This record gives sequence, structure tokens and C-alpha cells, in this order.
Amino acid sequence: MSSDMSDKSDKPSGTSFNTIFGPIIMAIDAELRAVRQEHAEIAPIFWQVIDYQFGWDLGPDQAELAAKAAGKKARPLLMALVAKAVSGDYQHVLPAGASLELLHNFTLIHDDVMDKSLERRHRPAVWTKWGAYQAINCGDGIYALSNIAMTRLLERGTPAEKVVRAARTMSQACLWTAEGQILDMDFETRETVTTADYITMISHKTGTLIEAAAHIGALLSTDDATVIDAYAQFARNLGIAFQVRDDFLGAWGDETRTGKSATTDIREKKKAFPILAAFEKATEADRAALRHIYAQDTLADSDIQTVLAIMARTGAAAQTDTIAKQYYDAALAHLDRTGIQNDTQTLIREFAAFLIRRAY
Amino acid sequence: MSSDMSDKSDKPSGTSFNTIFGPIIMAIDAELRAVRQEHAEIAPIFWQVIDYQFGWDLGPDQAELAAKAAGKKARPLLMALVAKAVSGDYQHVLPAGASLELLHNFTLIHDDVMDKSLERRHRPAVWTKWGAYQAINCGDGIYALSNIAMTRLLERGTPAEKVVRAARTMSQACLWTAEGQILDMDFETRETVTTADYITMISHKTGTLIEAAAHIGALLSTDDATVIDAYAQFARNLGIAFQVRDDFLGAWGDETRTGKSATTDIREKKKAFPILAAFEKATEADRAALRHIYAQDTLADSDIQTVLAIMARTGAAAQTDTIAKQYYDAALAHLDRTGIQNDTQTLIREFAAFLIRRAY
Repeated sequence: MSSDMSDKSDKPSGTSFNTIFGPIIMAIDAELRAVRQEHAEIAPIFWQVIDYQFGWDLGPDQAELAAKAAGKKARPLLMALVAKAVSGDYQHVLPAGASLELLHNFTLIHDDVMDKSLERRHRPAVWTKWGAYQAINCGDGIYALSNIAMTRLLERGTPAEKVVRAARTMSQACLWTAEGQILDMDFETRETVTTADYITMISHKTGTLIEAAAHIGALLSTDDATVIDAYAQFARNLGIAFQVRDDFLGAWGDETRTGKSATTDIREKKKAFPILAAFEKATEADRAALRHIYAQDTLADSDIQTVLAIMARTGAAAQTDTIAKQYYDAALAHLDRTGIQNDTQTLIREFAAFLIRRAY
Repeated sequence: MSSDMSDKSDKPSGTSFNTIFGPIIMAIDAELRAVRQEHAEIAPIFWQVIDYQFGWDLGPDQAELAAKAAGKKARPLLMALVAKAVSGDYQHVLPAGASLELLHNFTLIHDDVMDKSLERRHRPAVWTKWGAYQAINCGDGIYALSNIAMTRLLERGTPAEKVVRAARTMSQACLWTAEGQILDMDFETRETVTTADYITMISHKTGTLIEAAAHIGALLSTDDATVIDAYAQFARNLGIAFQVRDDFLGAWGDETRTGKSATTDIREKKKAFPILAAFEKATEADRAALRHIYAQDTLADSDIQTVLAIMARTGAAAQTDTIAKQYYDAALAHLDRTGIQNDTQTLIREFAAFLIRRAY
């Protein structure tokens, strides 16, 4: 399960995503292309994969597909917005934004191998085209390129101490993301996973790169530790809220609104928040029924109805909704704690709402 | 094919590896343990893998196995030797040494998955114990930890500008290593691979991390660009010489001296230097015979004899030997170019000889 969060979300109502955020996204793309250009090509496959992953292989006659293939760059966008809210500009964080986007894409390429996800952004996933092993190698190389991209902060006048701090924050986030992914895979075969275990897992697997976006955007724009911490906490809580809300939609989503089939997660036996919440509150008889259903290789429609009925009896939908809302409210409280008020801060609030629009 | 170079080599004659280099290796191990200790454990599996990979899971009653499981730490050892030759001390490079050792181990863990190598350092490889996917995840996390380890240079008083430079050098080496690995896998299915292609591949896959060891050891110890460059070139050439010599032994090695079965590489159809050299110089008839033999799934003993005969007719052994010696001589010329003469520099020369002792 890899969240490329923007791709799953509705567009902000009444305006186009690209109208509001387009110039920032173009600046991030330009920085990514500059990173790519400064390297001699040793292994052609590696650079073909990069061009493919960012949609740079598609010509002007395929602009629509290229826009989808490029991804929405939600994380560096958030980083740029935080930088602008704090300092009035975002140009100085672009190398860190490119670094984060490369890091995010490395995790997507590896996760798609492990999840056996055939498609990514409306095209075959990298491993589908180049094989699992070359996808792993290219992911490794893209993480190396992410680290190189970060050092370009020096050329934009960032003091070296701050570059090291940003790099350390990014590496810590990557370590936590890997640990979250390890936990997620471990949960697949674990007998019992509590909702608390699950929140720990997603706060690392999904939350830490979103947290890094806001954290680094702030630390490159101010020395005020309270402001930096508030933005970081805002983003981590937002990431958790996003994932729990995504889980809600995997059980009870409105297919016409989300583009994601309702009950998808149940059918795929995902250990997502709703089923874990139901299991915790279920009677012994219902637990036995759930254990029996989830021990099967595939679930029949009648099994899905049984799971939904147990979820209904345990109030799992309300609990899932409540937890998502709690983290969203916590996120907004941290955002207020920054004490910053301006147009960009309003855009950040809209960005947060946009991420979980499907919810509230 | 993953080279854990020290494990394959003879010990320096007349003295124990550990007597000469033991204190440095212990200091590197201590720094690695300190990196490990400063992190809260989110995913227990990740930290179990780290402890296993560095032999820290083994008690004092298994000291011999632990020493083998830990690896010989040849790269950070080289880094420390270069630092000491240049500046008289090596304590200041230990965080970079730990970072390099973590990076090297991440590549070993991933490569073992792709090579389906069941064992590493006399024990089951990480993927053999934890599965391929968790091995990939843990490798990713260990690379993140490698990046964090590098930032500890700040705490030893390294100026932040130098930390960024060291980190960039390391990341560039990792990118080149990944590109080398991509080329190596690509060669497996490519119709024609020239010896020039092969040297490009190994100079990146094997050479760049050894180059990074000497490069970073020097740049953290002097501002003299000529000295830094000379050490870097020395190590890259040494890495290439080591790999070509390793290839020689894979075709004509003395099993009793190398611990590696002679003709191993031929039996495994590896596109190593000797067979590529033979193919380039072979007659059309011999090329056809080689193409036929290598198109089979497995090679009979008679096939191996045919390959050895063609290698003999083309002078592949002499050519392989000559190329290895050329790179070794180039390495030593670069070492002289540093202009540094002291006991540690002599040790570096001995280290280089030790790496290819089996050769000359």
C-alpha cells in the first residue's frame, strides 16, 4: 500500500489544482531536471527509468498523460508553501523539495515491487516494465540522487550547517519510512495487530515524509524552533489523518466520488484501521468469524457482507471517522500554534482540507 | 556478484590482519554501535537485521563466528589509513567510515537478493532468513542510517562545508555503484559485452566505494586538492585491479589458496573479464562454440574444458593478468603522486598488496 496522496484526492473545489499550485510545481520540476542534467549517464537504463518515472519521456503531443505520469508533487508543494508562509519565498527550498520528491519516488518504485502493483500513475509501474531487480537497483540509485539533490542547497546560499540539518531530517524520515514499511509487511502475517500498532505503523510509513516536507520547509526559512516544530507536527498529524481517512474510504467509500471501489480493502484482506477497530470491539463469536474469513485465500461476496455487518455492530465506521477527525483537528491546532497568518498560511489550510476533502 | 573484498583475501604474510589493523577496526565498530544506539527502535525486525549483519547478535562464546560475521571493514579501514597518512590521526573520519560501512552493507544485502546468494560471511544471508522483501526494506533503511551516520562528523568538529562535501562524495559513489549494478545485470542478457564495457561496469560497481573510502579519508584531512585527487584515483584503480584479479582466480585460481573453486565463474556463466577477453580475440569458429555453450542452461565438464581451451588459444589469462597489473601499477603511481611518505603510507601500500596478494 503506497500512498501517492494527491492522485487519490479530489481537486480543490471551484479551482484547478494547477491554477493555484502550478508555478510552484513547475519550479520543482525544473529543479528535478537540473539535478538530472548535471550527471553523466553511466547506465542508460537508470536514466530511462528516471525520465519515465517523472513523465519526461512523453512528448508535447502527450501532455495530458505526461501531467498524470509526473505525479502531483504534493510533498515538495507542501514544503514550498510552508517556506513561503514563513519567509515570503520558496525558491531557497527547491533543492530540498527535489530531494524529497526523489526520495518519495524511490519508495514508490520499491513498494510497487513488494505490493505487486502493476500500475502507477496510469502507466505500468517501473518493475512491470524493467523487472523487479532493476526496479530495486533504480530505486537505490534514485535515493542516492535524492541525497545529491539536497546538497544543491549550498548553491542557493543556504548555510552549510542548515544543509546538514535538512539532510539529517530527511534521512531520519527515510529511516522511519523504511521501518513503517517493515512493520506493514510484518503485520500481514502477524496474528494480532492492534489499532495502536497500526497508528504507529502509518505515522512512520505515511506520516514521516509529509512531516519532513513541512519540517524542512520551515527549518530552511526560520530559526524559530517553536515554529519549525509546529509545522512538523501539523504535517505528521495530517499524514495520519489522511491515511485513516483513506482506510475509511477503502471500506465505505463512494466509488463515484473517490474513483476507488468501496470495500476494496476488505476484499484484499488489508489490515487497515476499520477491520482492526472492529476486531478489537467484536464479541468472541464475531472474532472467530473474522478469523475464519481472513484465513481464506480469497473472500466471497457473502464474506464481505459478514465483515461489513460485524463492522456495523462494533461501530467501526464511527470510530474510524472519529480517529481521522482527531488527527485532522490536531494538525490544524499545530498549524495555529505557528502563529503565522497570511495568504499562504490560508493556502496551507486549504491544502490540508483538500487532502481529506473526501472526508469532511 | 558482490565483492566483500577482505573476506576473499589472504592475510598479510607474517602478521595477523587484526594485529595491524585491529584498533582501527574496533574504533569503527564502536562508532557503528554508537550510531545504532542513538535511535529509538520502531520496527524490531530492522534492528535485528542490523545486529545480525554486524555480528552483534553473537555472544562472547561465539567470538570466532562473530569476527567473521562482522566483516573485515576494509573500506573504512582504508579511509582511516589515508586520514592517518595525511594528518597523523583517524578519529575525525570515524563517522564517515561508519557511514561507508553501512552503505556497503546495504549494497551487499540488496545484491544477495538479486544474486540469490544464500550465504554471506559464513551465515545465511539476510534475505535467506527474513525474506527478499524485508531484506530490501532493511537495505533501504540501512542506507538511510548511513546518511545519518555521516552527519555525526559535525560532532567531531568537522566544518559543515566539509560534511556536505563528504556526503556528496558518498552519495555520488552510491549512485555510481547502483549504475554499475544495473549495468552488471543488463550484461547478463546482452548479446555482446566488450572488455571496455566490463571495465566501465566494475569501475563503478566495485571501484567507486573503494574510491570513496580514500577520497573522503583525504578530504576530511587536508585541503590540498592534488593529494585528495591522487588518493581517490589510487583507490579506484586499486578497486578495478582487485576485481580483474578476482576474475582471474574465478577461471584459473588455486583452490587451496583462494578458498574459491577454480573455474567457478565459467561454470556459473559469469560474464567476467577472461571470457569477454577470449571472445574478443577468438576465431569465428571459436566464437560460435562459445555462443553455443553459453546458450545452455548449465555447462557440462566438457564445456568447461572447451572454454578453457579457447581461453588458452586466445591468451586470455595473460591479457587478464596484464590488465590487472596495469591498474595495480596505476594505483601505486597515484599513491606516489600524493607525495606523502611515512609509516602509515607504507601500511597503505601493504594494504593494496594484501588486496591483490593472490596475484603478484
